[in-house]
Amino acid sequence: MSTTREEFIAFFPQLTEVILSELPSFGATAEMTTRIKAMIEYNVMGGKMNRGLSVVDTVKIMRGESVLPPDVNEKAMVLGWSVEWLQAFFLVADDIMDESPTRRGQPAWYRRKDVGILAINDSFILEACIFRLLKKYFKSEPYYIDLVEILHETSYQTELGQMVDLLTAPENDINLDRFSIEKHAYIVEYKTAYYSFYLPVALALLMTGSPAESPVFQVAKDILIPLGVYFQVQDDYLDCYGNPEFIGKIGTDIEDNKCSWLVVQALDRVSKEQRQILNDNYGRKSPAIHAQRVKDLYVELKIESVYKAYEDKAIAEIQDKISKVDESLVPRQVFTAFLNKVAKRTK
Amino acid sequence: MSTTREEFIAFFPQLTEVILSELPSFGATAEMTTRIKAMIEYNVMGGKMNRGLSVVDTVKIMRGESVLPPDVNEKAMVLGWSVEWLQAFFLVADDIMDESPTRRGQPAWYRRKDVGILAINDSFILEACIFRLLKKYFKSEPYYIDLVEILHETSYQTELGQMVDLLTAPENDINLDRFSIEKHAYIVEYKTAYYSFYLPVALALLMTGSPAESPVFQVAKDILIPLGVYFQVQDDYLDCYGNPEFIGKIGTDIEDNKCSWLVVQALDRVSKEQRQILNDNYGRKSPAIHAQRVKDLYVELKIESVYKAYEDKAIAEIQDKISKVDESLVPRQVFTAFLNKVAKRTK
Ligand SMILES: [Mg+2]
Ligand SMILES: [Mg+2]
Ligand SMILES: [Mg+2]
Ligand SMILES: [Mg+2]
Ligand SMILES: [Mg+2]
Ligand SMILES: [Mg+2]
Repeated sequence: MSTTREEFIAFFPQLTEVILSELPSFGATAEMTTRIKAMIEYNVMGGKMNRGLSVVDTVKIMRGESVLPPDVNEKAMVLGWSVEWLQAFFLVADDIMDESPTRRGQPAWYRRKDVGILAINDSFILEACIFRLLKKYFKSEPYYIDLVEILHETSYQTELGQMVDLLTAPENDINLDRFSIEKHAYIVEYKTAYYSFYLPVALALLMTGSPAESPVFQVAKDILIPLGVYFQVQDDYLDCYGNPEFIGKIGTDIEDNKCSWLVVQALDRVSKEQRQILNDNYGRKSPAIHAQRVKDLYVELKIESVYKAYEDKAIAEIQDKISKVDESLVPRQVFTAFLNKVAKRTK
Repeated sequence: MSTTREEFIAFFPQLTEVILSELPSFGATAEMTTRIKAMIEYNVMGGKMNRGLSVVDTVKIMRGESVLPPDVNEKAMVLGWSVEWLQAFFLVADDIMDESPTRRGQPAWYRRKDVGILAINDSFILEACIFRLLKKYFKSEPYYIDLVEILHETSYQTELGQMVDLLTAPENDINLDRFSIEKHAYIVEYKTAYYSFYLPVALALLMTGSPAESPVFQVAKDILIPLGVYFQVQDDYLDCYGNPEFIGKIGTDIEDNKCSWLVVQALDRVSKEQRQILNDNYGRKSPAIHAQRVKDLYVELKIESVYKAYEDKAIAEIQDKISKVDESLVPRQVFTAFLNKVAKRTK
């Protein structure tokens, strides 16, 4: 049985309490504790939590249990939340760097009057909490150092992806020459796929006894990274072609000068004249006619059917890889569970 | 024999090379590698390197060797540089948060045209490098996890101190009500003393075989945290009373609204009228008459002799603690070496 978002959320106060209860040993005043509590709750809670949930679900599949024993459930929950906490660390900083006004329907943390640029240091504290929690719950486990290392490595991968993203599509500096299929692929793989798809499974594998050197990690990576890339390409596609009622927002990747899969595919196919149309219209916030011209060009270039072909191929390749998984290492269900959630989604 | 800054610097390219040489395994392009190299060199190099050097010197004292065997020297150098790297991570971010124009005589990293707000992510990458280096050089050592944990813990302490600092003395919002002797003590201990004084010795102790649970760490903390606090109080003192020719800059703590030891001592001693003088003059960038009024008030309140009394007492207390150190745990010289560098310094 899949873990529900409600069960997962119900576990959260226990973790916040661990962080807060040890603050006095760091000399913290009541005022500091109150602020840190608010900061954690504002930033860690509120997402879809698919990443965190998938850690717990993967542990269930690995153990072949639909209900986990309490001690195992607790550890799986902690690792699930460590991924959410890691994401909070990245998102707080990303919103500053992107100058984003909102996140999850509320003002971005740095936009609050009582926060501002302090948000940079808050993002560091969010990161530090992850390792406090790991120490608290896993210190005596033989795979403790492996958990720490995979979190370090994934952070580094995400930061490298973020670096390329920021260099490729800087705010208020439109230059499509920097965009390319290769750059898009790097950004998507490093900034998103490792922490969103590979990390949850890697943590669950470590927790259920796979040694860090086991070939299962490479097997998982070979499937989950392409799956994560496909997921992000879908995200880029849905931004333009999804139903806003389903995806819950009106896409603005064109206006925001995003290095989207759609635009790098278009750039790969344009004539000199069409390229000029992109140069003149991509990344303009207003008037809306600019974005419409880009969308018209996508139609001309049949980008939607390029996407459909990519999607069918991506799914087929992932399915093929899954079918070849040695089930003595890991049940195929670990990966089909992910693929079923992602394939042909409309939101 | 103390390690020289030159010897220490000569080791640096080897570490940069470790980071750069593994970047291809993270899919990095030549362009990324060039940028990361420049970013590391700009930010990690160029300080006084007392923190890093003290790791190597402490290892020498612990082993009773004035010249270390090559393999030991290498490890000590790596740990020394890990402290410098940690400082770089903090300083890159601190300069953004403080809107500082310069650092070590050159533009602060974030002020460079080709950097800007990307500096936030660069600070994350600097932090990540520390754990790449630890993994590379210490993975097979039994104390590897202890090194990782002390770096995590020290980062968290520094971040908590930074949080209080930013809340106490925010840019462009002068309110002396937030200043207090207690807040100053917290900021100094957490933001500076742990990473600058305790961390180098703790790393050296771990490397030379003290188990993480050994009482020697508490002994070291009890001496080095007060020593680090004294060092920072001195820094605050010298900002106002030091010879600019010796300290290499003209102090601006008063103009910069710093929660300096001098002002919290003054606030503790002012009459209602004198308090008004502070309120009206502290934290004003110009004209210079404001800072002069504050300095005149310090004279009236005899803050310089308050400092001299504090200094004598601090040194005496630290000397007393050192004299009681059980030398079967750690040679007293570890601490006298630090104290001799700090006591009564004029720069
Ligand atoms: Mg963003
Ligand atoms: Mg971004
Ligand atoms: Mg999107
Ligand atoms: Mg500063
Ligand atoms: Mg600062
Ligand atoms: Mg100073």
